[in-house]
Amino acid sequence: MSKAASAAVSEARQWARLMEMAALGAIGGGHPDDRGVNRPCLSALDRQARRLLIGWAQAIGCSVSVDPAANLFIRREGSDPTLAPVLTGSHMDSQPQGGRFDGIWGVVAGLEALEALHDAGVATRRPVELVAWTNEEGGRFRPGCTGSMSWAGHTPPAAFAEILDPDGIRYGDALAEQLRLEADLPRRPLGAAAGFPRPHAFVEAHIEQGPLLEAEGMDIGVVSGIQGSRWFTVTLAGESAHAGTAPLRGRRDAVQDMVRAVTALNALTADPTDTLRFTVGRVEVAPNTSNSVANRVSFTIDLRHPDAATLRAKGDAIEATIRQAVTTCEVSLVENFHAMPVSFDPMVTDAVAQAVAAEGLRHRPIPSGAFHDAQFVVPVAPTGMIFVPSRRGISHNPAEYSSPAQLAAGARVLVRTLLALAA
Amino acid sequence: MSKAASAAVSEARQWARLMEMAALGAIGGGHPDDRGVNRPCLSALDRQARRLLIGWAQAIGCSVSVDPAANLFIRREGSDPTLAPVLTGSHMDSQPQGGRFDGIWGVVAGLEALEALHDAGVATRRPVELVAWTNEEGGRFRPGCTGSMSWAGHTPPAAFAEILDPDGIRYGDALAEQLRLEADLPRRPLGAAAGFPRPHAFVEAHIEQGPLLEAEGMDIGVVSGIQGSRWFTVTLAGESAHAGTAPLRGRRDAVQDMVRAVTALNALTADPTDTLRFTVGRVEVAPNTSNSVANRVSFTIDLRHPDAATLRAKGDAIEATIRQAVTTCEVSLVENFHAMPVSFDPMVTDAVAQAVAAEGLRHRPIPSGAFHDAQFVVPVAPTGMIFVPSRRGISHNPAEYSSPAQLAAGARVLVRTLLALAA
Repeated sequence: MSKAASAAVSEARQWARLMEMAALGAIGGGHPDDRGVNRPCLSALDRQARRLLIGWAQAIGCSVSVDPAANLFIRREGSDPTLAPVLTGSHMDSQPQGGRFDGIWGVVAGLEALEALHDAGVATRRPVELVAWTNEEGGRFRPGCTGSMSWAGHTPPAAFAEILDPDGIRYGDALAEQLRLEADLPRRPLGAAAGFPRPHAFVEAHIEQGPLLEAEGMDIGVVSGIQGSRWFTVTLAGESAHAGTAPLRGRRDAVQDMVRAVTALNALTADPTDTLRFTVGRVEVAPNTSNSVANRVSFTIDLRHPDAATLRAKGDAIEATIRQAVTTCEVSLVENFHAMPVSFDPMVTDAVAQAVAAEGLRHRPIPSGAFHDAQFVVPVAPTGMIFVPSRRGISHNPAEYSSPAQLAAGARVLVRTLLALAA
Repeated sequence: MSKAASAAVSEARQWARLMEMAALGAIGGGHPDDRGVNRPCLSALDRQARRLLIGWAQAIGCSVSVDPAANLFIRREGSDPTLAPVLTGSHMDSQPQGGRFDGIWGVVAGLEALEALHDAGVATRRPVELVAWTNEEGGRFRPGCTGSMSWAGHTPPAAFAEILDPDGIRYGDALAEQLRLEADLPRRPLGAAAGFPRPHAFVEAHIEQGPLLEAEGMDIGVVSGIQGSRWFTVTLAGESAHAGTAPLRGRRDAVQDMVRAVTALNALTADPTDTLRFTVGRVEVAPNTSNSVANRVSFTIDLRHPDAATLRAKGDAIEATIRQAVTTCEVSLVENFHAMPVSFDPMVTDAVAQAVAAEGLRHRPIPSGAFHDAQFVVPVAPTGMIFVPSRRGISHNPAEYSSPAQLAAGARVLVRTLLALAA
C-alpha cells in the first residue's frame, strides 16, 4: 500500500504544478533556474495561487475550508471521519525577492501525496488534511507565521490587526478582504473546536534553506527541531543637520550611531562555533538625503540559536549593548517576534525516518535554522518536518533551487509518512 | 539714495511673502516656528511658487524670462539697459524635509530689494536682475545646482538629462514639462549671449545654515568663500541569504560591509580641528527585509573642506579605503559632484562690508560650509554672498529659523549692496 502510493508520486506533475505556481508573481530573468517569485500574502497573487490549488484538490474529490485567519484546509476523507486528521502543509507566500520552492513546495508536495493516494486507490483510516498557512514569511506583514500562531492559540489574531505593510495597509484589513473574496469557500473555526479535533500529527515538507544536505550528498533531512528566533526593531533618534555646515562634534547622526550599534552587536554575538545567527537585514534612514545628517535610523535584528538559554541571554543583552554603543541618539527597541527553540516529536520523526529507509534514500538528522509554521504547531500536536536539499543553501533569493528528482523523493517520503501516521 | 532704499525695505511684507511661499509644500506641525517645507524642484509646487513670485514682480513693473535650464529671471531695468546687469537671487526648491528659509529667502529678499528701489523711486544705472536657479538642493534630482551649473557653462545641460528622481522620472523630462507649462513666459538664452552680457556682479543672500553668527551675536556674515564639496555614491554587492540558515562565515552581507566601510571612512576623515565635514546621509538596502541577508547596499558620501588640497587628497583616498575595509562585497563608487573651494571677489565682498557698516550692524567675515549656486557663478562674474543668522545653526530641517528682524536686516544690506554695484 505504501509502495503503491509512493510509486504513484509523479515527478513531472509535481514539477509542472510548482512551475505553474512560480508563474504567479514571477520575477527575474537570466537562466530559467535562477528565476524567483514575489508573491505577498493576502494579495491578488496569493488568492490566484490558492484558487489554483483548490481546483487541483477538488478534481480528486477533496473538500476545502478556510478559517478566520485565512488558513486554507484541503481534506481527503478517512474511512473514519470522526478521527483526528493527519495534517501536512506549509505556506504559499514568498519573500519580496524570494524563490520558487520555499513554502510552496510543502503545499504542492502535500497535494501530490493526496493525489498519489487517490491514484493508487489507497484509503486511510484517518482523514488527511493539507493546510496552507497564512503569512509565514513576514515579507509583507511582519512578523511571519501569523496564520499558524493564530491557529495554535500562540497569539490572539487581533494582536496582528494593526500591523502595516510597506504601503500602510493594515493586516486586519487585508485579511478581511481575503475572507470577503473567498466567501464562496466553506468556513471552519480557528484551531480545535467541536467537529474539528486537534490533529493526530503534523508533518511539514520544506526545502532545507541551508547547505548541509547538498554538501554531504544526502537526499533527505529528518528534521530534529527548530532553533529559536528573536526579532527586534531598533530606532535611533538623532537630529537632522546640514551636511556642509554642522560641525561633526555637535552632530546627533543616526547613521553613525547605527554603525556603532551594529559594531557592538557584532562583538556581542561573535560565536567561534558559527552556530548563532545574527542579521541586520533592514535599514531605514530619514530623511535619507545625501546632504543632510540623518535624524532617524531604524534597523532590524534577527537573532537565532538552537539553545534556549543562549538565545535568551544574547537577546536580552541587545538593548544594553546598543545603549552603551551609541553616543548621541535616543534608543528605542521593540521585540517583534520571539519563538523559543523546539524539538520535534519522536512519533513523527520516527515515521519520517522509516519512510526514508523504505525509499532507500541517503538521509541525516538535521536541525532547522529557519523557523517554520511547524514551530507553532508543536504545542498543539506531535510535529515533524522533512527537508530536501537546496542548491548551495541559497534561499530567500531568486536563485533558490531544488531539482525535480530531489523534490519527488521528498514527496515519496511524505506520502509514506502520512500513510503511517494515518493508519 | 541708499538710505531711502534701505528705509523702504518692509520687514512685514518680506515676512508675509516668505510665509506665503512656506505654505506651498508645508510640512510638520507643532510650534509655528518649527514648521517646514517640502517643495521639490520642477514640481507643481515649484511652479506655483514661481507664479507667485512673478505676480509680485510684474506688479512693480519688472519683466520676466526663463532660460532653457528653467532658471527664472526678473529684471528691473537700468537707466542704461545696454550695461551688464547686477544679478542677485538664490533658489526656490527645498530639501524633502526642509525649512522655510534656505534658498527661498534669497529670492524673496531680492524681490524685497527691487520693491524697495521701486517704492523709494530709485533709478539704477545698471539693470538689476533677480534669478531663481533651478534645483539647487539636489533633494529630488542629485546632484544639486544643475541650474547654475548649466547657466555658468560648468556642465552641459544634457549631462543632467538622465538623472532619475526617486520615482524614476528623468530630469530631462521634468525640465521639458516645466518649460512647456511656462511656455507663456518669454524665453532667454542660456548664460551669456548677444543681448545678454555676463553680469557685472552676482550677490546671493542666504541664511547661514551654521551656528557661528548666532553664537557670536552677529547680524550679518560677509561671506569670504565656499568650501569645496565632493559627493560619492558607493554600492556594495554581496549575496542574499536566509538569515536563519546561512552560517555567518560564508555570508556576503552588504550591511556588514557597509558598517566596515563607514568605520574605515570615519578614520580616514578624522579631523582634530573639526573642519572637515564627512556625512553618510542616505543608505539604501536590498532586499531590505529583516530575515534576509542584504545582497546590496548603496550609500552616499558628502565630503567638504575649505582647502582644495585636503579635499582632493581625502576624496581621492575614499575608494581605496573602502576596498581595504570590506571583506566580501564587490565595491563600486561613482563621484556624483565635485565643486572646488572658491574665494569671493573683493569688489563684491567690499560692497557688502560697506553696506553692513552703513547699516551699523554687527558683522564678521565667514566662510560658507554649504555650497551655493554662487559657487558656480564665480568663474563667470565677480561674486559674493550675504549671510543672516540661523537659529542653533539648524538647516535642512523643519526647525530651520531666522527671525523677521534678522531677515529684514539682511534685505537692507542687500539693497545697499545692489545699489553700490549698479551705480
